[in-house]
Amino acid sequence: MNRRIVGNTLGKVLLAEAALLLLPMTAALFAREPVLPFLSTILLLLVSGFLLTRIRPRSPDLFAREGFVCVGLSWILMSLFGALPFVFSGDIPHLIDAWFETVSGFTTTGASILENPELLSRGCLFWRLFTHWIGGMGVLVFIAAVLPVSGDSYIHIMRAEVPGPTVSKLVPRVRKTARILYLIYLVLTALECLLLVLGGMSFYEALLHAFATAGTGGFSTRAASIGAYQSVYIEMVIAVFMLLFGCNFNLFYLVLIGQASTALQSEELRVYLGIIAGAVLLIALNIMKGCGGFLSGLRYAFFQVMTVLSTTGFSTCDFDRWPELSRWVLVLLMFIGGCAGSTGGGMKVSRILILLKSCYAELRRMIMPSRVRRIWFEGRTVDDQTVQSVQVFFFLYLLITGTGTLLLSLDGCDLTTNLTASIACISNVGPGLSAVGPSGNYLFFSPLSKLILSLEMLLGRLEVFPMLFLFSPRVWKRM
Amino acid sequence: MNRRIVGNTLGKVLLAEAALLLLPMTAALFAREPVLPFLSTILLLLVSGFLLTRIRPRSPDLFAREGFVCVGLSWILMSLFGALPFVFSGDIPHLIDAWFETVSGFTTTGASILENPELLSRGCLFWRLFTHWIGGMGVLVFIAAVLPVSGDSYIHIMRAEVPGPTVSKLVPRVRKTARILYLIYLVLTALECLLLVLGGMSFYEALLHAFATAGTGGFSTRAASIGAYQSVYIEMVIAVFMLLFGCNFNLFYLVLIGQASTALQSEELRVYLGIIAGAVLLIALNIMKGCGGFLSGLRYAFFQVMTVLSTTGFSTCDFDRWPELSRWVLVLLMFIGGCAGSTGGGMKVSRILILLKSCYAELRRMIMPSRVRRIWFEGRTVDDQTVQSVQVFFFLYLLITGTGTLLLSLDGCDLTTNLTASIACISNVGPGLSAVGPSGNYLFFSPLSKLILSLEMLLGRLEVFPMLFLFSPRVWKRM
Repeated sequence: MNRRIVGNTLGKVLLAEAALLLLPMTAALFAREPVLPFLSTILLLLVSGFLLTRIRPRSPDLFAREGFVCVGLSWILMSLFGALPFVFSGDIPHLIDAWFETVSGFTTTGASILENPELLSRGCLFWRLFTHWIGGMGVLVFIAAVLPVSGDSYIHIMRAEVPGPTVSKLVPRVRKTARILYLIYLVLTALECLLLVLGGMSFYEALLHAFATAGTGGFSTRAASIGAYQSVYIEMVIAVFMLLFGCNFNLFYLVLIGQASTALQSEELRVYLGIIAGAVLLIALNIMKGCGGFLSGLRYAFFQVMTVLSTTGFSTCDFDRWPELSRWVLVLLMFIGGCAGSTGGGMKVSRILILLKSCYAELRRMIMPSRVRRIWFEGRTVDDQTVQSVQVFFFLYLLITGTGTLLLSLDGCDLTTNLTASIACISNVGPGLSAVGPSGNYLFFSPLSKLILSLEMLLGRLEVFPMLFLFSPRVWKRM
Repeated sequence: MNRRIVGNTLGKVLLAEAALLLLPMTAALFAREPVLPFLSTILLLLVSGFLLTRIRPRSPDLFAREGFVCVGLSWILMSLFGALPFVFSGDIPHLIDAWFETVSGFTTTGASILENPELLSRGCLFWRLFTHWIGGMGVLVFIAAVLPVSGDSYIHIMRAEVPGPTVSKLVPRVRKTARILYLIYLVLTALECLLLVLGGMSFYEALLHAFATAGTGGFSTRAASIGAYQSVYIEMVIAVFMLLFGCNFNLFYLVLIGQASTALQSEELRVYLGIIAGAVLLIALNIMKGCGGFLSGLRYAFFQVMTVLSTTGFSTCDFDRWPELSRWVLVLLMFIGGCAGSTGGGMKVSRILILLKSCYAELRRMIMPSRVRRIWFEGRTVDDQTVQSVQVFFFLYLLITGTGTLLLSLDGCDLTTNLTASIACISNVGPGLSAVGPSGNYLFFSPLSKLILSLEMLLGRLEVFPMLFLFSPRVWKRM
C-alpha cells in the first residue's frame, strides 16, 4: 500500500476539519460562550494535520485499496477529534458518549445519547448539527472540491465515500464533479433554510435543521424534534426536502443542464417514489383510526415514511405506538434507505432493485439454462462483478446487523430494542422501536454497546467495505 | 412443459400416500378407534391416484422445470389429502387448521395449532408424527426407492426435493441412491426407537418420537414435549439423534462403505459441530445462573441448540424465558439450520459457508482486481452459477421472511412473535419466541396468517424455488 499518500490525505482531512470548526466557534462567539473548547480542538487538528501533510508521497498512485483505507481512517480520526469540543466544554463529559454523538452526527445517523439537546451550549449544538451536513456529502468529497488533489486517481477515494453500488463522474474531471455536487448541496440547503424561515422558524434553527435534513441526519435543536413546532407547513417543507436529499444527486445535475426529462426516466427514482407512495398509503390506512382520520393519517405517514426511508430520523409523533403493521413497514424501509448517490443511508434502492433483478434472472436461468440472461438497470447492462458485489454487500449488511443485535443483547434489553437499534444504526436512521423509539434515546446502553453501535454507523455510512479493509493485514502491506 | 409426466408422477405420489396411510389406520385398529376417517381418505387417494397414473407420458423427458413443478404440486396435494383424516375424525374440525397441522408435519416444521396433543385419537396422533418421517426424507425420494421411475432424468425431481445447494448421486443410478438414503434413514430411526425404549419409554411413544426426530420435525405425543419425561437419558438420546439427522446423509454412506475418515474431513460437518460447540457453551454460560449451575446449563443448552439448529423443535424448557443473548443466539441458529442433504431445515450450513467464502473472495478481488479467485468447498471449486444461486436463495429467503412478518402483523401480535413465527416456519423449526414460544402454539393466528405460515413452511422445506415456479406462467407453457 502507498502509505505516504494515505498519511498525506489524512493530514488534509484534519486541516479541513479545523477549518470547518471555525463555524461553530463563531456561533459560540456570537452567543458569548467560551470558545476555548473549539480553539483547542482546532489547534490540535492544525498541528496533527500539518505534521501529516509533511509526509510527501513518493508516487501519486492511488488505487482502490488506498481509497478504502483513506476513507475508513479519515472518518475515525474525524470523529475522534470532532468529539473533543463536547468533552472540553463539559456538555458531554464522557468521551465514549461524545464519540457516539459525533459518529452519529458525521454518519448522519442521528441516534443521540442526549435526553434534552436544548440544554447544550449554542456552539456545541451548532457543531452537533453541522456534522450532519459535513458527513452527508462527505469530507473527502469536500476536500476534492476545495483543495488541489492528486489527479484523477482521487476517484478511488470518491468511490469509497459516495454511497451506491457504482459511482460515476458527472464530468470528466474529479475536482469539477466534487464542486458540482457541493454546489447542488449548498443551494438545496439554503433553499430549505429560506423556506423554514418563511414558515416562522428562527434563522438559527432553520439553518441547523436544514443542515440536519441535507445530510439526512436527524438531530434536532428540540427535544421533541420537528413535532415541537406543531406546524403542518414546517413538517411538509422538511418532508419534501428529506425526499429530495434521498434522491441521487446526479439527477439534480441532469435537471441543471436541462435534461430534466432524462432525470425523470430514472428507474431508481421511479421505484423510490413508488415505495414512498405505497408505504404512505398503507400506513395512513393503518393509523387513521388512532389519529383522527385519513388526512391526518396521511400527514403523519408521509413525514415518518420520509424520515425513515431517507434515513433522516426526525419525528413528529411517537411511531413506536403505531399498530404492528406500520411499525414493521418502517423497519423494512430502514433497510431499503435512499437512492445511490444521495446523502441517505440504508442499502439503497438501486441495490434492492439489482438484487430483485438478479433473482428474476436466476429463476429464468433455472428453467431455461441454455440462454444467457443480462441484467438491465437504468438502460445499461449491469456487469456480473457489480451484481456479485451487491449480493455480497447484502449478506454482509445483514450479518453485521445480526451480530450487532447479538452483542447488544448482552445489555439485557428486549429483542425489539436490540434489533431495531442495530438496524437504525447501520442504516443511519437514528430512532428505532421500543426503548430506542422516537421518545427514547441511546444513553442507557453500556459503553461497549455504544462502541458497537458507533462501529455499525460507520460501517453503514461507508457501505461496509472501507471499514472492513482496515482490519485486513493484506491491505496494509507495503507495495 | 411435459405436463403428462407431471400428472403421472402426481398420481404415483397419491398412491404412495394411500399406502403410507395404512400404518396409522392399523394404529387406529389396534386402539379400537373408528377407521373410517383413514379408509375414506385412502379411497379418495386411490381413485385420484389411479386416474392420474392413467395419463401416459408421450415422452419420458423430464427436465429441471418438470422437477420443480412435480415437487411443488406433490407437496400441496399430499398435504391437502393428508389433512382429511384429521377433519373426518373430528380431531381437528376446521380444514385450515388441519391443513396447517399437516403441512407443518410434512415439512417437518412442528408448529402446532393443538393446545394438547394428548387429546388426539391414537390413529391421528400416529399420522401426525408419521408425516414428519415421510416429509423428512421426502415422498418423491420414497417413490424413487420403491416404484420403477423413468430413468435417470428423475434426478431433477430428487434435486428439487433434497435440501442443499447441490445434490449429487451417491451411486450412478438414481433408484439405488434413493434406496440407500431410505435404508440409512430407516436404520437410524429404528436405532433411536430402540434406545428410547431402553430408557423406559413405551414402544408406541418411542416409535413416534423417533419418527419426529428422524424428520427433524418436532411434534410430540405430549403437551410438555420431551420435557414431560424428566429424564436426562431420553433428552441426551434425542439430542444426539437430532445432531445426527442434521448431518448430510452422504456422510453416513461414506461411513457404511468404510470411508469414515473421509466423512470426518467434511468441511460442512466440522463447521456444523463447531457452531454447536460454540452455541452450547455461550448459552450454558448465559443461563447457568438461572438453572442451577453450569452442568445443568450445558444440559438444557445442548438440547435446545440441537432442537433449533437441526430445526426439530422439541423442548425441555421454556427458552423464551432465557436471557436475551441466548434467545437471539437461538434465532440466528434457526436461520442457519442443518447440513445439506440432511432432513433439517433452515438455510443449511453449506450455504452459509459458501456465502462467507464468496464475501472473502469479493473482498480480495476489491483490493487485488487482477487476480481471479476461485471458491473452494469440500475440496472442490464451486462454480459461479452455484454461488449466484446461493446468493439469490439468501436474498429470497430473507425477503420471504420479511414479507411473512409484514402480513402476520395484520393480526396485531407483537414484533417478536411475528418475526420469530415467520422465521420458525420458513426454517421449519416450529416454536419461536414470545406468543409462539415453546409454551405457546399457533392456534390464535387468523386463518389468513395460518395460510401464510403454511406457505412459508412449504417454501422453506422445498428451498423456495419449486414453490415459486408454480406461480410462473412461463413454466406452465407446453413444450
